[in-house]
Amino acid sequence: MSMNHEKLLDFIDRKDAKSLRQLFDMYPIIDIADLVNHIDDPIRTLYIFKTCTSDHTAELFSHLDSDHQEALLNLFSDKEVVSLLSNSYADDVADVVADMPANLVSRILRVADPSIRSEINSLLNYKPSSAGSIMTTEYITIPKTYTLNEALEKIKETGRDKETIYSSFVVDQKRKLIGTLKIEDILFSPGTKIVEDVMNQSFFSCKVTTDQEEVAQLFKRYDLSVLPVLNENSHLVGIITIDDIVDVIEQEASEDMQKMAKVIPIDDSYVDASVMLIARKSIPWLALLLVLGALSGFILNQFEEAFQSVAILAAFIPMLMDTGGNAGNQSATLITRGIALKEIVPKDFKTIFKKEAQVSVLVGLAVGGFAFLWINFLILIGFLKYETGFTAWTLEWFLSILRISGTVSLTLLFAIMIAKMVGSVLPLLAVKLKKDPAVMASPFVTTIVDVTALVVYFLLASFLFQLF
Amino acid sequence: MSMNHEKLLDFIDRKDAKSLRQLFDMYPIIDIADLVNHIDDPIRTLYIFKTCTSDHTAELFSHLDSDHQEALLNLFSDKEVVSLLSNSYADDVADVVADMPANLVSRILRVADPSIRSEINSLLNYKPSSAGSIMTTEYITIPKTYTLNEALEKIKETGRDKETIYSSFVVDQKRKLIGTLKIEDILFSPGTKIVEDVMNQSFFSCKVTTDQEEVAQLFKRYDLSVLPVLNENSHLVGIITIDDIVDVIEQEASEDMQKMAKVIPIDDSYVDASVMLIARKSIPWLALLLVLGALSGFILNQFEEAFQSVAILAAFIPMLMDTGGNAGNQSATLITRGIALKEIVPKDFKTIFKKEAQVSVLVGLAVGGFAFLWINFLILIGFLKYETGFTAWTLEWFLSILRISGTVSLTLLFAIMIAKMVGSVLPLLAVKLKKDPAVMASPFVTTIVDVTALVVYFLLASFLFQLF
Repeated sequence: MSMNHEKLLDFIDRKDAKSLRQLFDMYPIIDIADLVNHIDDPIRTLYIFKTCTSDHTAELFSHLDSDHQEALLNLFSDKEVVSLLSNSYADDVADVVADMPANLVSRILRVADPSIRSEINSLLNYKPSSAGSIMTTEYITIPKTYTLNEALEKIKETGRDKETIYSSFVVDQKRKLIGTLKIEDILFSPGTKIVEDVMNQSFFSCKVTTDQEEVAQLFKRYDLSVLPVLNENSHLVGIITIDDIVDVIEQEASEDMQKMAKVIPIDDSYVDASVMLIARKSIPWLALLLVLGALSGFILNQFEEAFQSVAILAAFIPMLMDTGGNAGNQSATLITRGIALKEIVPKDFKTIFKKEAQVSVLVGLAVGGFAFLWINFLILIGFLKYETGFTAWTLEWFLSILRISGTVSLTLLFAIMIAKMVGSVLPLLAVKLKKDPAVMASPFVTTIVDVTALVVYFLLASFLFQLF
Repeated sequence: MSMNHEKLLDFIDRKDAKSLRQLFDMYPIIDIADLVNHIDDPIRTLYIFKTCTSDHTAELFSHLDSDHQEALLNLFSDKEVVSLLSNSYADDVADVVADMPANLVSRILRVADPSIRSEINSLLNYKPSSAGSIMTTEYITIPKTYTLNEALEKIKETGRDKETIYSSFVVDQKRKLIGTLKIEDILFSPGTKIVEDVMNQSFFSCKVTTDQEEVAQLFKRYDLSVLPVLNENSHLVGIITIDDIVDVIEQEASEDMQKMAKVIPIDDSYVDASVMLIARKSIPWLALLLVLGALSGFILNQFEEAFQSVAILAAFIPMLMDTGGNAGNQSATLITRGIALKEIVPKDFKTIFKKEAQVSVLVGLAVGGFAFLWINFLILIGFLKYETGFTAWTLEWFLSILRISGTVSLTLLFAIMIAKMVGSVLPLLAVKLKKDPAVMASPFVTTIVDVTALVVYFLLASFLFQLF
């Protein structure tokens, strides 16, 4: 049976509780949530929550978008809120609460069981993008004096509502983390051994304040599946599992990409972000570019005479700007990405710079050489008109054309070389200055490349045409 | 003790086997590999392989770069190669073999145990970026008739050299996959229950030919930790675990970013890629842009007269091009990213288009308005010189200046609107045409925006200055 939005509404309207309950056995809850997110009337949605089991509906609730969550919370009785909370993971509840208006937040915290309330509160108080904000507080702890058999018993008894049973955490009386114990360590060793003798004492951990990007790097580099999170006294306060990290990696890559495209990163998904928000995040860099654009204007202003005497020179400005800008952007992106992935570290900077210098010469020669042929072709077939003042097909006529194509392609060679050097130095410099390479690089690359390309262009033209 | 390259060389040269062996207990192997990758003399590296235990050195080997691997393989005796192979995971060996020259490959395959050989061969034969190429063939299978106690026994006996013990796979006599069994399902149920009654029958799976990006989407959407890979007869041939997916997500994000920056994606890390390779991947799009740049040249060619009579018009060309190009790139990036993350699906296209249209008007008005003020300011303070032909500070003089700033800012309004519409339509169109949105979008956005912005600019100028 394939499921769709109409069928779901039909079940609800016919009060067909049995079919609704069956849905949860037949489809992943996230797919059901997609359908429910299309139901506009919260009263109809409420029926699902009234008829299905609360562990199903708690997960369903966590996948709904925040408008639907808010509408439902307004319809729920206090008892229903309590049941929802007690069947959800604390980190999911904290995510929900973070998006709700103040009156709903205080209602949720009022009805919540004290232990849930303190967990939500502490998760909400961690800085966004910190390890504290993405960790969960549901994990298994085991005393170091247990035998492995006792440890396994504890996992069987308490593991059901924990985020993971694959790793347990060995703490002393003061909740100081002293070791980790994987389920395979328990299964592969004799059950009579003592936890302290089997546990792994050289484990990785992070602080609650550690940035989530750093946490993701640890997971990737050391192939971790779980990471304990400690407070300033080395007490265990939470764990982060690899499935949370998958989202972090996606989010960080999106942010880098948006920064490279000169958008101030949007936290929401594109679909959820409002028109005003997207506009507000897009305007600042465009305005900055415009301000910096005054410099190119100033240069062009200085060379007005050159245009007036050799009008065709203006025809190649967009070509030079676009090619230069893109060449610089290529280097900036490759290097920014390399830095983000920790492939490029400060001690490699000299090597990287040398490499980009070689790349820039190769690319400059290839693209410049190609431009030379292409521009001659465009003028010869008359696509671009150029009044040389000489009879067509005479030697002087040819030389005049070569002078134009030579000027443009030589400028391209220099522009590409400069663009690629600037595009690679700026992100490296940003790292040295402890700034974000993705943000630093882009608008300045464009401006520096524009200005230098124009100066080179007109100096070459002035020299080759002896205008001055 | 902090470790560095010199200390490591010192241990090797003093033949201090004990300290070398201790290293593996004190540091993550990937960090040791970083140090070994800096040893230029393979004979010295070989000493580590001769003195340390083979399960440590097998993992160390998998983290070395391919030059070091090749040099070591040339020094290894056949017996050492066999020991290396039997202590490595088949997918790691396949990755190594994929990078080796043919003579080494045939030597590896010749000395390999037949079962390892067939695994390597089959992994090598799957298309790059397919599920088959990233899967591993080491997993636990369990007959459906076992009790949970028997299943747990099998996991304890055979689990040590498997990629994961967290999930086992229930197959029938023909290796057809009929269910999956998590370790928690075993631990949380009475041991006398039969596997068939406990196993999960509605599991996700993929084909060997499924693209790795699709596999990553499944992991993210359904929070999977492992995914079985089936051949065309639904027989289980491998599994993919979430730690492999972390790499895929990074790789796909890097590829998208490189495409947006008009580089043909480089598979290697930036540091490993040769100068020639980077240059070769950077040139094609630059050359294409240059070819398309002929169109902007053609437009400017048509409006030569306008330049010659109002020279200041040229001064704003870079500003218009850069702002237009970036505005289009902003929309293209946000939408391409949304498509990559599956936030934007074809049925949303109308909504997205409407949203971008609204964004483009807001951004166009804001940036155009700002440009109006900024250009007036630049001319008034004399940073940009403009010969109006009127006495300074008279009404006519003011009107001439307003005519210029008005022309440029109106053009900006239109250019931004057009750029953002083109930047959002092209990736959506690419999806409809089943092309990659990241590749399609960028060079065409630039060209379309350049050409239309120039046409609008000169038409407005011609109208406002009554040049024609």
